[in-house]
Amino acid sequence: MNFGSDNTGPAHPKIMEAVVSGNGGYAMPYGNDTLMDDARAQVREVFEAPDAAVYLVATGTAANSLILSTLGEPWQTVFCHAEAHIEEDECNAPEFYMGGAKLTLVDGPGAKMDPAKLRAAIGHKEVLGVHSAQRGPVSITQVTEKGGVHTLEELAALTGAAKDFGLPVHMDGARFANAQVALGCTAAEMTWKSGVDAVSFGGTKNGCMAVEAVVFFDPGHAWEFELRRKRGAHLWSKHRYLSAQMAAYLSGGLWLDMAASANARGSQLIDGLRALDHATVLYDPKANMAFAELPRGAHRRAVEAGAQYYMTLEGLAGGSDDDPVPCRLVTNWATREEEVAQFLELLA
Amino acid sequence: MNFGSDNTGPAHPKIMEAVVSGNGGYAMPYGNDTLMDDARAQVREVFEAPDAAVYLVATGTAANSLILSTLGEPWQTVFCHAEAHIEEDECNAPEFYMGGAKLTLVDGPGAKMDPAKLRAAIGHKEVLGVHSAQRGPVSITQVTEKGGVHTLEELAALTGAAKDFGLPVHMDGARFANAQVALGCTAAEMTWKSGVDAVSFGGTKNGCMAVEAVVFFDPGHAWEFELRRKRGAHLWSKHRYLSAQMAAYLSGGLWLDMAASANARGSQLIDGLRALDHATVLYDPKANMAFAELPRGAHRRAVEAGAQYYMTLEGLAGGSDDDPVPCRLVTNWATREEEVAQFLELLA
Amino acid sequence: MNFGSDNTGPAHPKIMEAVVSGNGGYAMPYGNDTLMDDARAQVREVFEAPDAAVYLVATGTAANSLILSTLGEPWQTVFCHAEAHIEEDECNAPEFYMGGAKLTLVDGPGAKMDPAKLRAAIGHKEVLGVHSAQRGPVSITQVTEKGGVHTLEELAALTGAAKDFGLPVHMDGARFANAQVALGCTAAEMTWKSGVDAVSFGGTKNGCMAVEAVVFFDPGHAWEFELRRKRGAHLWSKHRYLSAQMAAYLSGGLWLDMAASANARGSQLIDGLRALDHATVLYDPKANMAFAELPRGAHRRAVEAGAQYYMTLEGLAGGSDDDPVPCRLVTNWATREEEVAQFLELLA
Amino acid sequence: MNFGSDNTGPAHPKIMEAVVSGNGGYAMPYGNDTLMDDARAQVREVFEAPDAAVYLVATGTAANSLILSTLGEPWQTVFCHAEAHIEEDECNAPEFYMGGAKLTLVDGPGAKMDPAKLRAAIGHKEVLGVHSAQRGPVSITQVTEKGGVHTLEELAALTGAAKDFGLPVHMDGARFANAQVALGCTAAEMTWKSGVDAVSFGGTKNGCMAVEAVVFFDPGHAWEFELRRKRGAHLWSKHRYLSAQMAAYLSGGLWLDMAASANARGSQLIDGLRALDHATVLYDPKANMAFAELPRGAHRRAVEAGAQYYMTLEGLAGGSDDDPVPCRLVTNWATREEEVAQFLELLA
Repeated sequence: MNFGSDNTGPAHPKIMEAVVSGNGGYAMPYGNDTLMDDARAQVREVFEAPDAAVYLVATGTAANSLILSTLGEPWQTVFCHAEAHIEEDECNAPEFYMGGAKLTLVDGPGAKMDPAKLRAAIGHKEVLGVHSAQRGPVSITQVTEKGGVHTLEELAALTGAAKDFGLPVHMDGARFANAQVALGCTAAEMTWKSGVDAVSFGGTKNGCMAVEAVVFFDPGHAWEFELRRKRGAHLWSKHRYLSAQMAAYLSGGLWLDMAASANARGSQLIDGLRALDHATVLYDPKANMAFAELPRGAHRRAVEAGAQYYMTLEGLAGGSDDDPVPCRLVTNWATREEEVAQFLELLA
Repeated sequence: MNFGSDNTGPAHPKIMEAVVSGNGGYAMPYGNDTLMDDARAQVREVFEAPDAAVYLVATGTAANSLILSTLGEPWQTVFCHAEAHIEEDECNAPEFYMGGAKLTLVDGPGAKMDPAKLRAAIGHKEVLGVHSAQRGPVSITQVTEKGGVHTLEELAALTGAAKDFGLPVHMDGARFANAQVALGCTAAEMTWKSGVDAVSFGGTKNGCMAVEAVVFFDPGHAWEFELRRKRGAHLWSKHRYLSAQMAAYLSGGLWLDMAASANARGSQLIDGLRALDHATVLYDPKANMAFAELPRGAHRRAVEAGAQYYMTLEGLAGGSDDDPVPCRLVTNWATREEEVAQFLELLA
Repeated sequence: MNFGSDNTGPAHPKIMEAVVSGNGGYAMPYGNDTLMDDARAQVREVFEAPDAAVYLVATGTAANSLILSTLGEPWQTVFCHAEAHIEEDECNAPEFYMGGAKLTLVDGPGAKMDPAKLRAAIGHKEVLGVHSAQRGPVSITQVTEKGGVHTLEELAALTGAAKDFGLPVHMDGARFANAQVALGCTAAEMTWKSGVDAVSFGGTKNGCMAVEAVVFFDPGHAWEFELRRKRGAHLWSKHRYLSAQMAAYLSGGLWLDMAASANARGSQLIDGLRALDHATVLYDPKANMAFAELPRGAHRRAVEAGAQYYMTLEGLAGGSDDDPVPCRLVTNWATREEEVAQFLELLA
Repeated sequence: MNFGSDNTGPAHPKIMEAVVSGNGGYAMPYGNDTLMDDARAQVREVFEAPDAAVYLVATGTAANSLILSTLGEPWQTVFCHAEAHIEEDECNAPEFYMGGAKLTLVDGPGAKMDPAKLRAAIGHKEVLGVHSAQRGPVSITQVTEKGGVHTLEELAALTGAAKDFGLPVHMDGARFANAQVALGCTAAEMTWKSGVDAVSFGGTKNGCMAVEAVVFFDPGHAWEFELRRKRGAHLWSKHRYLSAQMAAYLSGGLWLDMAASANARGSQLIDGLRALDHATVLYDPKANMAFAELPRGAHRRAVEAGAQYYMTLEGLAGGSDDDPVPCRLVTNWATREEEVAQFLELLA
């Protein structure tokens, strides 16, 4: 019963087998391994983008920061939600990689930017000419930090605002697969067909050890990105262990199977919570992550029975057992149906 | 009738005389000139801070950015008002000098941070440990960007929030003299006695050509600041021309006389606007800058008679002559009483 | 017959087993996994440094750059050999992480800095006060980029120069194990007992997938390093896969066994080359890497038989078969005695 | 008898008069003043470059660093002489403004890069592809740091090396006027006609207070430069005081008259030194700066009589009066013939 994060769970055995299998004999370093040819081809196929520039790095923050620095300039500002990972959870990595750029925060419910507010925020910049930060990339998180998923219409509204001002669009897809499964669309539909220019295509949270693909639909960014990746110390010498993960991740649809399983457990959990009188499901969860308020007593029963997940800081300490305490619950490919059922029983 | 900005006006003749007078013969470069000894001694006396580290630079953005980078770290965030100069008007210079730090924006009326919101913003950071931006300096603008002046009580409420979290406090004093005159207090009371650690002490806007003093009340910052100033290309070789300005600025209270005159013209203007039925004075102006809404027709009369100042972008174009159009009006030491009277007559 | 680099060879099966084994069930993310406790304890034991701050990253460039930025300041210069990896092979990563610091290059045979030249280079800086780059860390590469190994006396001469000027010392130990085996000393003797303050302790090149330990003997650097690692996007969420590698690497002396095997193959290769009339061994190789000049015809025979390694750019193309062509040959833990013998036969 | 530097001397009275004269009434800020129109037009005329992008800043280090960051990228290296001002005297400002780029040092006598060594240095880079710093701008100092002047042929040899690799060329012209007078050529011949892409056109050292023009012959760099200048805090609000200096500097050939006078005093000094048996003139001075070795006793006589200039650190202390002690001597527009004569008599 671990709902702490999709990064506390194990990698899928097929991922591990691929890494072990990729370990035989010698391989060219620095991305020139043949496994990377396989991984690149599969990423391009998934995105229906035969010319896309495709790279691998080991962390989502690296993917986000390196992409933003390639799309933007140090004197610009990135438009993102106030609760975006790049704002809240990356210790100024985007600003560091961009050479001192700014992040302009846009509000909206459920960690989705309100398109009108995005337009207003973009419009407000550059009114002062050289004095203000210049308009830079728009960054959209899909799945959102609150467990929601932008519909294709919602994506189009945001990318439309960006395009009207000539701005590039980045998608932080740390949970890309979960979003795609939730929408039942294609990867192309959720990205370049919706106006997205570059994607952090996550593998780590969805059953890999440590791998994220960087995808630029315009290959003109390729060489600059390679230099930025190397300069950021994110180019692996024994690169095949990244390639092996990504190749196995995409092979035979493993990535979608894992996301489907995680989302199914997410639905089971959300439905179960909604069926509880004393639980309140927050925001509008659509994938494998839910926020909810439960009485402290319910939390206590679950935790004492071994459940693990994040509560607000005060958590179980102090106060009455009837007080509502917010929590975050995340499922992953390895979450079992019985675990969720047992957890829901404990809360009931 | 130029109310465009206090940087469109001339320097005071005494400042010019001092610069010309400082031009005789040879002088040591890079701040080792004897005029700097005079300027430093006067700054220390004004601030009642005999050990303060005192430096001169030519722009307010340089003073702000160099101070913030000395007080903070690249992985921190600076707390400031959403309308602060460092956020809106410096093209990411603070982020550049700080090596990629963040600015966290705090709301409040009249471009003054609400102390409770400042506390909440500070408290929200570091909850995520190494993942979030760390808490950094608090920056207060005095006079505010909307023409208001923090009272000593208001300053204490903001610096108190900073101190409770162990954070250093910077004051952007581009219009320091105007604020001090408005409050009728001492420079020490408005700074270190109120919990301020470092000041951008402006001279440019108040009758100098181009000079701002940087004042650290803790001289332990001195050497790092000197290196940062040099590395930022802000150390003048013929430094005496900065020193001469600052020495003359402070000599005989010229700086306070100029600010008093600018503020008097500001009061004349504000009172005059308030006496007009069709004018609305915005915010709570206390020094030499006012924001107001006037009918387009009034603006038209003034502009056609030669008045210069900033309106919102649409300005005189389009719409009815009765539409309210916001504007900003700034007085300076050279503004004459007749000019203000004439301007008010045109608006009437 | 692959002598391309120690990063083209496979990881050791025990490393892979440890990673697979570490994959069972759930684990705390971001370095809070129990495997990290094991890895940290072993690193401290190896270095006889019970208080050392120990961290893991995935690339040697990350280890080097993050350490140098923690030990130095943006206005300083790092002293290193002109052929050091941080100068030649890291695409300005050290300068990027340090916020714009400089590298001052010191000559000396075999990619070892000449201690007198190091002293002279350090002495030359800061003569101009605030105008010049300030003295910063000294960085020593062990094994050197030319395959040599600094003796303890040579290390002491370099760190002594640093200490006389109060400068911290970094060791780039991408091939640390190979050097230690070559010297027959302890890890403590080769580092803190010789005046080294922080080490990039390599695992990747010596039989791991991708892991380097960062070791600071002064734990006062710990928190700043953690922030820099996160901000550099080098903190893994599923950190256990780094921990598992390092724990297995050190367990039972695997790391030294692998280095001993690689060095033995290196010696076999070097001795064999020296026995050839037409081969010239360059520099003074002591570990698992050798540079040599061989007639183009000898290279041709080896390459046509399937040998892989780096030659100068022109390589096999053009010129006479008698022309000497320089090459680099690297052995690793997986290199077999028969491979080296076969290769030498081809060259003969 | 002050030969300390051309930055210890006074500004020319005509410069001061222009600044005072520019102080009348109101003026547009931030470079939109009408005096800037005059200054820009004159710079373009001097350089025979009607489309050049022309900007003003207050320090030579700002001009150099902002130009280099506009011409280059953070992952590149700048090629310059080992004794260039950007390497020795700017406390890492170029690296800071470039976002962590490198400087690759090229040797050659008299602080002039040897063209063959420049080609070799450029050629050595990028052999390792993404791993090494990429080739960036070539920076040439004219007058050199040792008082020499590149002939047009020497300039062409250096810029030719740059052009063969497609690299842009920067000229650090802190003493541009002195070089031009020495060569008897036009500003166009010494720059774009010789393959130079951008110039730091110095005014400060040659009789101004604090002003340097930045000139890009390709106006495509204009907007990026404006953003970089603002972000670097080098855009003056009361810009007219920079404009007034540059306009007066160029008006009526004042800049060339001042340089001619300084150079004449330089020649007088150099000829006088060469006529002394016990003096050795170093390098090959051609403008207003000379390096020489003189017996300590001669220095003592001069210094005791009030002469001011730089000697090596030990200077007058210790040793015999017969020991040769190197010194640097700089003349400026204000140096009088009698001063030089008196100084030479003291040394005799």
